[in-house]
Amino acid sequence: MVKESEASGGLEWRINMPDGSSKILVPESMPRTRVCGALQGVLMGFLSNFWGFIHKAWNLGLNDPKKFFHCIKVGLALCLVSVFYYMRPLYHGVGGNAMWAVMTVVVVFEYTVGATLCKCVNRTIGTCLAGALGVGVHWIASQSGDFEPIVLQVSVFLLAAAATFSRFIPSVKARFDYGAMIFILTFSLVSVSGYRVEKLFELAHERLSTIAIGTSICVITTMLFFPVWAGSELHNLIKNNMEKLADSLDGCVADYFANDVNANNVKTEAPNKILLGYKCVLGSNATEESLANFARWEPAHGGFNFGHPWKEYLKVGASLRSCAYCIEALNGSINSGAKAPDVLKAHFSKFCLRLSSSSSAVVKELSTVINTMTKSTKIHLLVQEMNNAVQELQNALKSFSEQSITSVTVPKLEESDNGAVKAKTSPALVQIVALVTVSSLLMEIAARTEEIAEAVNSLAKKAEFKVESDEKSKQIHNPKALTR
Amino acid sequence: MVKESEASGGLEWRINMPDGSSKILVPESMPRTRVCGALQGVLMGFLSNFWGFIHKAWNLGLNDPKKFFHCIKVGLALCLVSVFYYMRPLYHGVGGNAMWAVMTVVVVFEYTVGATLCKCVNRTIGTCLAGALGVGVHWIASQSGDFEPIVLQVSVFLLAAAATFSRFIPSVKARFDYGAMIFILTFSLVSVSGYRVEKLFELAHERLSTIAIGTSICVITTMLFFPVWAGSELHNLIKNNMEKLADSLDGCVADYFANDVNANNVKTEAPNKILLGYKCVLGSNATEESLANFARWEPAHGGFNFGHPWKEYLKVGASLRSCAYCIEALNGSINSGAKAPDVLKAHFSKFCLRLSSSSSAVVKELSTVINTMTKSTKIHLLVQEMNNAVQELQNALKSFSEQSITSVTVPKLEESDNGAVKAKTSPALVQIVALVTVSSLLMEIAARTEEIAEAVNSLAKKAEFKVESDEKSKQIHNPKALTR
Repeated sequence: MVKESEASGGLEWRINMPDGSSKILVPESMPRTRVCGALQGVLMGFLSNFWGFIHKAWNLGLNDPKKFFHCIKVGLALCLVSVFYYMRPLYHGVGGNAMWAVMTVVVVFEYTVGATLCKCVNRTIGTCLAGALGVGVHWIASQSGDFEPIVLQVSVFLLAAAATFSRFIPSVKARFDYGAMIFILTFSLVSVSGYRVEKLFELAHERLSTIAIGTSICVITTMLFFPVWAGSELHNLIKNNMEKLADSLDGCVADYFANDVNANNVKTEAPNKILLGYKCVLGSNATEESLANFARWEPAHGGFNFGHPWKEYLKVGASLRSCAYCIEALNGSINSGAKAPDVLKAHFSKFCLRLSSSSSAVVKELSTVINTMTKSTKIHLLVQEMNNAVQELQNALKSFSEQSITSVTVPKLEESDNGAVKAKTSPALVQIVALVTVSSLLMEIAARTEEIAEAVNSLAKKAEFKVESDEKSKQIHNPKALTR
Repeated sequence: MVKESEASGGLEWRINMPDGSSKILVPESMPRTRVCGALQGVLMGFLSNFWGFIHKAWNLGLNDPKKFFHCIKVGLALCLVSVFYYMRPLYHGVGGNAMWAVMTVVVVFEYTVGATLCKCVNRTIGTCLAGALGVGVHWIASQSGDFEPIVLQVSVFLLAAAATFSRFIPSVKARFDYGAMIFILTFSLVSVSGYRVEKLFELAHERLSTIAIGTSICVITTMLFFPVWAGSELHNLIKNNMEKLADSLDGCVADYFANDVNANNVKTEAPNKILLGYKCVLGSNATEESLANFARWEPAHGGFNFGHPWKEYLKVGASLRSCAYCIEALNGSINSGAKAPDVLKAHFSKFCLRLSSSSSAVVKELSTVINTMTKSTKIHLLVQEMNNAVQELQNALKSFSEQSITSVTVPKLEESDNGAVKAKTSPALVQIVALVTVSSLLMEIAARTEEIAEAVNSLAKKAEFKVESDEKSKQIHNPKALTR
């Protein structure tokens, strides 16, 4: 215990010891103690923050070891390219411009093979095109005497503005964004540099050879050591999203109908994570598009031939998202609080659960189709089953007023003044709004699941997925199995 | 008419003239004509494609003239920096390394001020940090005698791998992705280059001054001539998304209830575009996040102070999206085809239309709040009105079986064997599934609209939006006006 007391004009600090005595603290030691304490606190806080950060980062890598491999690959490529500095013959071979090779490696090396190839091609084409144009403009300018700087400036202005504008055009941006930047860079450097044309050719040769060295080191490293193919990543992303969607759907509906049975049980975290799996699907648009763009640059790999229909994956992704929107709304209605009577819920649960599980079975089968790249013979049956489940749910809704209301809440009938008999089913009806909405959304989800099936079917056709070998004969007898 | 006939072992081409005579074509002129025609076709096709591309690109610019200005700014900045090549004193002032200044301008100049500033700061910090570290490592390596290349290689490998890994960490990626790349680049160049340390200091000085020149030209150009602030763009994006959402909601519901009145009228394209406005909201996640990231780098501008709570805009955006998901599901249910009887629809249309228009009124008022950066005094009333509309719709659902069924489809009552009276309201019930779903989704949308209101309210508080001056006294008497 520290006590502060003002005595004889000075500040005095006392510590009451546990044995009752008190001890006066020497004043000048105080600030030091405090400062030390504060410093220690700050330091500990910083260290614990830093440790937390490192820990999180490490887990990030552990969850996806490909990230670690990528880092190692970047280090390796840089070590390889830096050999050019140590081997004098190599160094002089590129006119002492080994710097450009290092720069190329750092700038061009990306996580996926497709992105790396895209940047390599862009860098090479951009440099060649701009170099040739730059030399041409340089020559024209040198012929124009006093106007040389003006010709150069105007050409830089116009071409830079045009190339910058091209970067706004979506189709150019998707494929040649980096190339346009390199074009502006090289053109400005060449046309402005003020070298003689002969010197420029020499420079161009050196720059191109360094770029060739850099890009080939990148391509070799990225493709030979644990390659990360944008195509495979896209393929797996779509497959995983399908599985998450199916689990979410199952989870949501089961959760809704099981709600009252164990309403008092605190829900565990794990199922919640499954329930919210559809949120991954909602936000994966940008990733899918960039992966599809990069995948087009990749050569044949794994089961994917050159010219694999990557755009079809985007369509599958879009149909998955359209289904996920409905699951979002479903989740909203489920949590909206309006409770249906237990007996009614129990009555409908069988139809709703059947529909949701048959929908999710379709989605899971489709994810298997994508995973194994094998056309499924079962999918026709599963879709049929889902449609039957929709029909049954609709029938249940049709027969609802006949059976359920009477059996659950016997309607009070009252005679009105004019003698007409009114059925007072109102409490039942307002209570079932949520139930009807869940049913209706489930039917909408089934419709959208069929769209997913169509998108996957179109992908399977265009990508020429193989046919299940053991079921081959069946497939031949029933060629329409996948058309539906 | 051209006729081909084989006569006397050779190929003969004849044209039958309109007057009945026929003319033999000289054989060698034929392929030329054909080739010319084909070439002309290809050329025309190419030209029309090219013209279409240019036309589309031009329209892209016309729709957003800021894009044209950006291109002009890039050209201008490049012209400014190239002056360093023409003015000999300036050129020699940076040791003939004006190239780095040009490179900095090309690489760093981005569309928004925030992105440009972010890259400028990243480039400067990355270069400084890596330069200092590189010189240190260089010195250590030079002390280690024969092991010099090994020390250098190991350090490049380790630091490049570590910096690459840091780019995977979301918080680093959002702010310092470019800086990490520049760090790797500079460190590799410095530690590998093999220069003596004195020479390195000189190089570092030159490189830093060229970067300073390049970045300052970029910053001046981007901030003085028609600046595009990431903050304002984000602000406007959110505002426009709100308006689109409100219009979509209004349009969807009005379209559903007006469906039968003019079912035979072919719908015009324009309303369809409005109807699908919510799709813009669905896909704007990535744009919002990058804009918010860049906005944090910007100084005070317009009505935005330094430290404006940009993160709150992301929350508003997320709540808008959550509302848009419901509108998507609503749109799905509306188009699902199940038709409710006209009289029922007419009965519910008044409640649904009232709810949708009061929800969209709330959203529109919130967009005005954001647009004018003024707290609204009406919003409390509007939310209240929306909640009343929800209540009314719920009451309508409650009283539905009493009023509507009897008035619309008088229930057939039949005596069953055990004497209980059953109300046969089933045809009406299955028909109203869509209607009930629309109502329920509208209520869910109202709930999510309240969340938008809360998010905007939190933004208004943190950003200290001003209070409507003419209503100030009212606001003081009713301080809770915005708390709801």
